[in-house]
Amino acid sequence: MAETAWTRKDLLGIEELSREEIELLLDTAKSFLEVSTRSIKKVPTLRGKTVLNLFFESSTRTRSSFEIAEKRLSADSVNFSSASSSLTKGETLIDTALNLQAMAPDLIVIRHAHPGVPQMLAKRVEAGVINAGDGAHEHPTQALLDALTIRQHKGRLEGLKITIVGDIEHSRVVRSNIHLLQKMGAEVTLAGLRTMMPVEMEKMGVRVVHTLEEGIAGADVIMMLRVQLERQSRMLFPSIKEYFRLFGLTTERLRAAKRDVIIMHPGPMNRGVEIASEVADGRDSVILEQVANGVAVRMAVLYLLAGTQQEAE
Amino acid sequence: MAETAWTRKDLLGIEELSREEIELLLDTAKSFLEVSTRSIKKVPTLRGKTVLNLFFESSTRTRSSFEIAEKRLSADSVNFSSASSSLTKGETLIDTALNLQAMAPDLIVIRHAHPGVPQMLAKRVEAGVINAGDGAHEHPTQALLDALTIRQHKGRLEGLKITIVGDIEHSRVVRSNIHLLQKMGAEVTLAGLRTMMPVEMEKMGVRVVHTLEEGIAGADVIMMLRVQLERQSRMLFPSIKEYFRLFGLTTERLRAAKRDVIIMHPGPMNRGVEIASEVADGRDSVILEQVANGVAVRMAVLYLLAGTQQEAE
Amino acid sequence: MAETAWTRKDLLGIEELSREEIELLLDTAKSFLEVSTRSIKKVPTLRGKTVLNLFFESSTRTRSSFEIAEKRLSADSVNFSSASSSLTKGETLIDTALNLQAMAPDLIVIRHAHPGVPQMLAKRVEAGVINAGDGAHEHPTQALLDALTIRQHKGRLEGLKITIVGDIEHSRVVRSNIHLLQKMGAEVTLAGLRTMMPVEMEKMGVRVVHTLEEGIAGADVIMMLRVQLERQSRMLFPSIKEYFRLFGLTTERLRAAKRDVIIMHPGPMNRGVEIASEVADGRDSVILEQVANGVAVRMAVLYLLAGTQQEAE
Repeated sequence: MAETAWTRKDLLGIEELSREEIELLLDTAKSFLEVSTRSIKKVPTLRGKTVLNLFFESSTRTRSSFEIAEKRLSADSVNFSSASSSLTKGETLIDTALNLQAMAPDLIVIRHAHPGVPQMLAKRVEAGVINAGDGAHEHPTQALLDALTIRQHKGRLEGLKITIVGDIEHSRVVRSNIHLLQKMGAEVTLAGLRTMMPVEMEKMGVRVVHTLEEGIAGADVIMMLRVQLERQSRMLFPSIKEYFRLFGLTTERLRAAKRDVIIMHPGPMNRGVEIASEVADGRDSVILEQVANGVAVRMAVLYLLAGTQQEAE
Repeated sequence: MAETAWTRKDLLGIEELSREEIELLLDTAKSFLEVSTRSIKKVPTLRGKTVLNLFFESSTRTRSSFEIAEKRLSADSVNFSSASSSLTKGETLIDTALNLQAMAPDLIVIRHAHPGVPQMLAKRVEAGVINAGDGAHEHPTQALLDALTIRQHKGRLEGLKITIVGDIEHSRVVRSNIHLLQKMGAEVTLAGLRTMMPVEMEKMGVRVVHTLEEGIAGADVIMMLRVQLERQSRMLFPSIKEYFRLFGLTTERLRAAKRDVIIMHPGPMNRGVEIASEVADGRDSVILEQVANGVAVRMAVLYLLAGTQQEAE
Repeated sequence: MAETAWTRKDLLGIEELSREEIELLLDTAKSFLEVSTRSIKKVPTLRGKTVLNLFFESSTRTRSSFEIAEKRLSADSVNFSSASSSLTKGETLIDTALNLQAMAPDLIVIRHAHPGVPQMLAKRVEAGVINAGDGAHEHPTQALLDALTIRQHKGRLEGLKITIVGDIEHSRVVRSNIHLLQKMGAEVTLAGLRTMMPVEMEKMGVRVVHTLEEGIAGADVIMMLRVQLERQSRMLFPSIKEYFRLFGLTTERLRAAKRDVIIMHPGPMNRGVEIASEVADGRDSVILEQVANGVAVRMAVLYLLAGTQQEAE
């Protein structure tokens, strides 16, 4: 691994990364995939490093994926959730951060509902900061694990036609994915209801379509997004049944896709809303491979950032 | 230890175990008791193994007992509770399980309010699954730690007269205990109010009585059950005072018991409801030994299941 | 380190400590400061020791400081919070404690809203107990980290003039600080509104003043306390604006202080209530050093108590 190429203190988003940095992250992740298949799933790489996991929004899969990655690298994990935080006592996030920094952690993983919080944190602390999702802004490790999964199946990202389908507006992952896929030379199409498609999306250089059929035609990869039913404060579609009729991915609709299309979903899935169970569990689905790749991607990010920390000492 | 005899991937209940398997579990637990008395309370047995603790119902003693057992075996523990889970986002339990499985844990410990959930999980994941309580169905490690405690005091289980007293209907542990004690040749009596005694109990081959006096007479072991005050949606007894008068275990009532009777309770106790403080803390009580044995039993289960995992690789 | 001098099983408060014991704790803490500056922030000192962290009140900084200290000493940490506790099932705290004791922990860290709970626990368990705050009674590790910070800046505690300012009544830390500072020969002044100043304070041998100006004049150290806005069930002051006008520490007011005064705060701060941001972040502030020292102080306490445990075995 050419780890000398990594010089950033933090991983805040995909937007600022170069193609070479993305490739380094993916290559490093690939080399860590093997660790999780061993009988002893552990390497001593981050022994004696302290990683703080600050989750200000609840999460099962991302938090556990990071925590497992940290433990497989032999780091010490310390977890916080918003409920147990002194934020409830009115302290500012910056004061919480500076206090945690004073305890000399090496790395901080943060998820927060507000875009920009990880960036603000990174400026104020010496520890390396990893953005585990800041609202609908960036979620870089998700985009990286998606890319790793596509590369495993297609051998490359360059030139692929990739369609992202569904609730674009509320998605935590779509912006990071667009940045990554475009940097790597893929062609991105967004397919969704007009009510779920922010106008600024067209400025990102993507193709926008408003039917699932147009999105499926010719796609090498279909990424389904979770409909954020819980965030739908105003009605964006008439009913779940109607949404499924228009944008639910079914076996029948997949007949119009390329023969070697792969189906992705960042989870958690709403079966029967954006995706039919027979597709989620079907032969084209690589959804569980995404999860497995998530652990390896997070190991790679932790490893590369810890290396930068080490050099600074 | 003859660990080659253990071939199951999971520990889901006592009902399906053979007498030999139960003896193997108890003998292995006995050999682990010593670890918790050392100055360095740790063996490297499960180093590099990942154990997920999924508690969908709150628990202090069982969760901590498992977590301490895991750490004394040098495993890496990752904890989930229902509050932080994406189940709140509408994901199915099976999807959560498959996602966690994709992160390649070696073992999953699960407590859930619904009977059958650990069994369903075990069918879908490669990881070994340990049932830490599925509603009022099975709670195998509790039955095993009870059996270990009895064996320490009586030298055997065969031929003993064992009475289980109290809120049979809501008990998490009573079915596992009946299965285990009967397989090992003990005679089981259930003593409780008719309103707390499910009709199917008599079909399990136990003696059922409806006064504490009948339950106490001749018993070698008295297992008191917690009255699940919080689950009593309809009134099963007139008042706590009245319940204590009828079924509360007091020093006075114990005079009718065998001289060498031992008193057990799975905890948490309601002092002054099902048991008087002078009995809970008295010379016949082995309640705290049960807790100490719990750590050793869980170490044994984790160890044996991890061995099966190892062989499968 | 002359660790042979430490003979206590528990650290429950400062009141009962001798000057020599306080000096041993501070000297030991000083020697641990260096560990958190290493690349590998870990020593094997408490390997195989189990530490239970029982937080019955929410806390970010104290819990994380203890947890990080435990991990840097290679101990195994098991965390409990009130939400997940069987206390919600009506079990008594003593039963919870005895049950946890049966799992053979080496040390128990406890925070509880009620004064005296750690003391009661310590009598009933063999494990060493560390009081991490019992209501407004004692919070010994906070007083120790404050003392370590003062010693770093002033070279001594003896003869210093130290003023504690603010919400004396609700403070978790003020009693421990008074005990420690007086034992070490410092002169303590308390400055606060009459409504926030318990009458028993004058009996502790401190000077009490009711304006910030009197508190600032001649002080070597100013310790600001958090106004416990959330505990103010009856109004203790007319408004936050009025409180800040009377007792808020500002740059302007600091002009009347000694040139080499240091400003402390136990956190979490209410910026603009008891302290202006320009003071909190200014050149006299040692607030973040306090936090860093907290990890070292907790490592020292854990280390010394574990040594006592060891000898008892």
